[in-house]
Amino acid sequence: MLPFKHIIPINKESKTAVYRQIAISVIKAIRNGVLKPGNHLPGTRELSKTLGVHRKTVIAAYEELHAQDWIIIIPRKYTAVADRIPILRPQQWNLENALSSYEHHFNLPFKIIDQKIEKLHTVVLPEIVIDDGHPDVRLSPIDDLLKTYRSYTSKRHTIKNANIGTEQGTIRLREELAKYLSDTRGLNIRSENLLITHGAQMSIYLAAQLILGPGSNIIVGSPNYPAANVAFEQTGATLTEVPVDENGIDTEAIEIICRKKKINAVYVIPHHHYPTTVTLSAARRMKLHELSATYSFAIIEDDYDYDYHYTSSPYLPLAGSSHQGNIIYTGSFSKILDPSLRIGFMVAPKNFIDQCTALRKIIDIGGDGYMQNALAFLIREGELKRHIKKAKKIYHQRRDFLDTLLKDRMSPYISYVRPSGGMAIWIQLSSEYPVHRLLEIPQLKILRVDENLNAFRFGFASMDEKELEKTVDFLKTALNRF
Amino acid sequence: MLPFKHIIPINKESKTAVYRQIAISVIKAIRNGVLKPGNHLPGTRELSKTLGVHRKTVIAAYEELHAQDWIIIIPRKYTAVADRIPILRPQQWNLENALSSYEHHFNLPFKIIDQKIEKLHTVVLPEIVIDDGHPDVRLSPIDDLLKTYRSYTSKRHTIKNANIGTEQGTIRLREELAKYLSDTRGLNIRSENLLITHGAQMSIYLAAQLILGPGSNIIVGSPNYPAANVAFEQTGATLTEVPVDENGIDTEAIEIICRKKKINAVYVIPHHHYPTTVTLSAARRMKLHELSATYSFAIIEDDYDYDYHYTSSPYLPLAGSSHQGNIIYTGSFSKILDPSLRIGFMVAPKNFIDQCTALRKIIDIGGDGYMQNALAFLIREGELKRHIKKAKKIYHQRRDFLDTLLKDRMSPYISYVRPSGGMAIWIQLSSEYPVHRLLEIPQLKILRVDENLNAFRFGFASMDEKELEKTVDFLKTALNRF
Repeated sequence: MLPFKHIIPINKESKTAVYRQIAISVIKAIRNGVLKPGNHLPGTRELSKTLGVHRKTVIAAYEELHAQDWIIIIPRKYTAVADRIPILRPQQWNLENALSSYEHHFNLPFKIIDQKIEKLHTVVLPEIVIDDGHPDVRLSPIDDLLKTYRSYTSKRHTIKNANIGTEQGTIRLREELAKYLSDTRGLNIRSENLLITHGAQMSIYLAAQLILGPGSNIIVGSPNYPAANVAFEQTGATLTEVPVDENGIDTEAIEIICRKKKINAVYVIPHHHYPTTVTLSAARRMKLHELSATYSFAIIEDDYDYDYHYTSSPYLPLAGSSHQGNIIYTGSFSKILDPSLRIGFMVAPKNFIDQCTALRKIIDIGGDGYMQNALAFLIREGELKRHIKKAKKIYHQRRDFLDTLLKDRMSPYISYVRPSGGMAIWIQLSSEYPVHRLLEIPQLKILRVDENLNAFRFGFASMDEKELEKTVDFLKTALNRF
Repeated sequence: MLPFKHIIPINKESKTAVYRQIAISVIKAIRNGVLKPGNHLPGTRELSKTLGVHRKTVIAAYEELHAQDWIIIIPRKYTAVADRIPILRPQQWNLENALSSYEHHFNLPFKIIDQKIEKLHTVVLPEIVIDDGHPDVRLSPIDDLLKTYRSYTSKRHTIKNANIGTEQGTIRLREELAKYLSDTRGLNIRSENLLITHGAQMSIYLAAQLILGPGSNIIVGSPNYPAANVAFEQTGATLTEVPVDENGIDTEAIEIICRKKKINAVYVIPHHHYPTTVTLSAARRMKLHELSATYSFAIIEDDYDYDYHYTSSPYLPLAGSSHQGNIIYTGSFSKILDPSLRIGFMVAPKNFIDQCTALRKIIDIGGDGYMQNALAFLIREGELKRHIKKAKKIYHQRRDFLDTLLKDRMSPYISYVRPSGGMAIWIQLSSEYPVHRLLEIPQLKILRVDENLNAFRFGFASMDEKELEKTVDFLKTALNRF
């Protein structure tokens, strides 16, 4: 006899009528093979006893099942599973009323990740969204990229190739990118020094997993890019903060710490530091090289914002100077083309790239090979450089326009230093205007706020002049009401 | 005085001429801000002493720099960095000859990931590629997907939304997928029970990271999907193997182990087990439920191959039966649409999904929001179901066609059980034909081979009848030569 008490669980608290609960359970048992075509079901009297429900309830359930062709009823003889059961018929039960085992909690021990996740229950965004430095997707050659992508998915040879070797990134993209990085940043590397990741964050995560762990130490700026900090904390390493001033991370402070304890790595954002937008000075760059050699620590150089420099040419990366190979350099195309395009990269010595590739393969096998090859094509054709040139000019204008707007209309409320590049201005509010009150305004969403520093990032690159003006006016009106 | 010995490192072993090495280093120093416009350079005599090279070498370097407008030379007075330095001019040095700091090894301690990575140095694939069960991309509605994607990248509202909330997956995709999974597999869940991942592997990785660690135990089948095993090993957990026979993983063996030691999780592939293609029987499914409740272990149910069942309707997932919430269910669209489309999902109780989402955000921020919404559209319009219906019919024919071919032409060499579904046949070679010898054939590439079992996976779904025939004939000829 089949264990019907187990097959048909009853929840008397549920909003679903008990007869429907029974019917649902029987359908499930049929569909998952526990009940087979021809199997007899218990009589209604017997089943009502087993389940502890009224007999009428069982009768109602059987009628429902019969109406749906799941069972046959031979009156006064037997009830059995139909020979030809309805195969995979659409769910006939309202989702709201169905029982779900997933209303339970997962109640075995598991690791708790200490990070705030923003829950989104709607696709409707507020009227004004201030991002933390996104590109303007309307300017991006996304359409060219997708055209190439589409052309690849129809070619037999490309198809066979597309998902092979993507754990490190397709060979085509790595070769084009190696040339491109040499060209634009003096990084003379080979394709074997490159790992294509699912965004810059993955480069940071992989590097952290390999070089940090419980007992190890990493130095980060204060303030710092929060997503990098959580990736480091996740390994069990200890984070030590040093100040970031107008010349970037304080290398004297780093030296003092290195004298006292073993430091395994230093995380730096050399261009347009996140969130403050300052650029690391040449003197501190040299000092950092020296310290890295003296105290044997790795440098994780997060150069997410290299391409947008307005008033002068950007400094070449630390990774481009002469060093002993212990610099892990990371960058991203999300900031150039589209935040949704999750393609980033890591530059490191081959032995390190190999281990990162192995770990990456365990995490998610690899990336989207078509998209990588489409991006390689965009680089080879010079389309990426043309785009950056155009975008740089426009973002430069937008920075200046926002600068003027802020000076003209927001001076009483805020202070800021105009950044030499990048896609955002770091704005500090005067102490009378606590930034958390901006978060309470339903029509407004600001992606990056620092309540301790009473500051927020104003991403200007993604807005045209009209949008910038509207946003500034909105902010001004809001602050006026404080 | 600037430390020119540090700024200009000389490598006499290098293939690059020393004068060019000097010039490259000076250009780098100018470009990274160490040397500024107007800074004087040492005289040629002085610099040759500092660097330990012949004076003529320094003269040649300065001439090169002058020719490229990096420096000005006032004869008999001084040499200085040009006031208007060439900004970001294209690299004028041949990659092959340039110095790279990345020729060094990373020589600080780092974790070694014990996994084989296949190195690809070419995009040219062998004539015959036997995958392990890929869909035929030529049948996939990739073009519709990309059309929708393109339409999204041009809509302001969608753009603002696209990369928000993607750590868990866009709300649109999660809502459509919840309905779809209810419809097709009786999984009555809400969007909060879903995490959209970068492929099925990421679901396995995340689950493993949260529920396993040093000292914990997981049971896996033998043989098993190797990429799952490495994800479990990576956490420091101990893997215990139990046999997989024609009815799937041996639940009696699992029970015996559970009596002896604490088991934290069991990993099962219920449909078309990888690599053997067997399906877990209904009796064992029930047993597994029972054991999970008795011994309090989590079940990781990897249902990568649910959609392709030919001779009968598939069993509903373990996750769809009544249980206490401790089943983590994973699936993927890579197997339905395209292996390059890295979209997978995890179903679990909300409290577990929340922690997986938090960890996922640390790893790679999130997925491609446009692609997720484009996929949501494909599901909503019924396009995905239509595709699966069509593909199922074609793959069914291909399975039968390959079955006939193998029977007719390969009987002396092989044995196999025709799978009831899926996209591959698991083929065992007779012992006289060691499978490793197939790997030595340059024109042939087989993605999944098990040398211990002398077997390989023959993915038939991606090949049309002509391609299947060509491949079988190629194999036959190759085996004949053994």
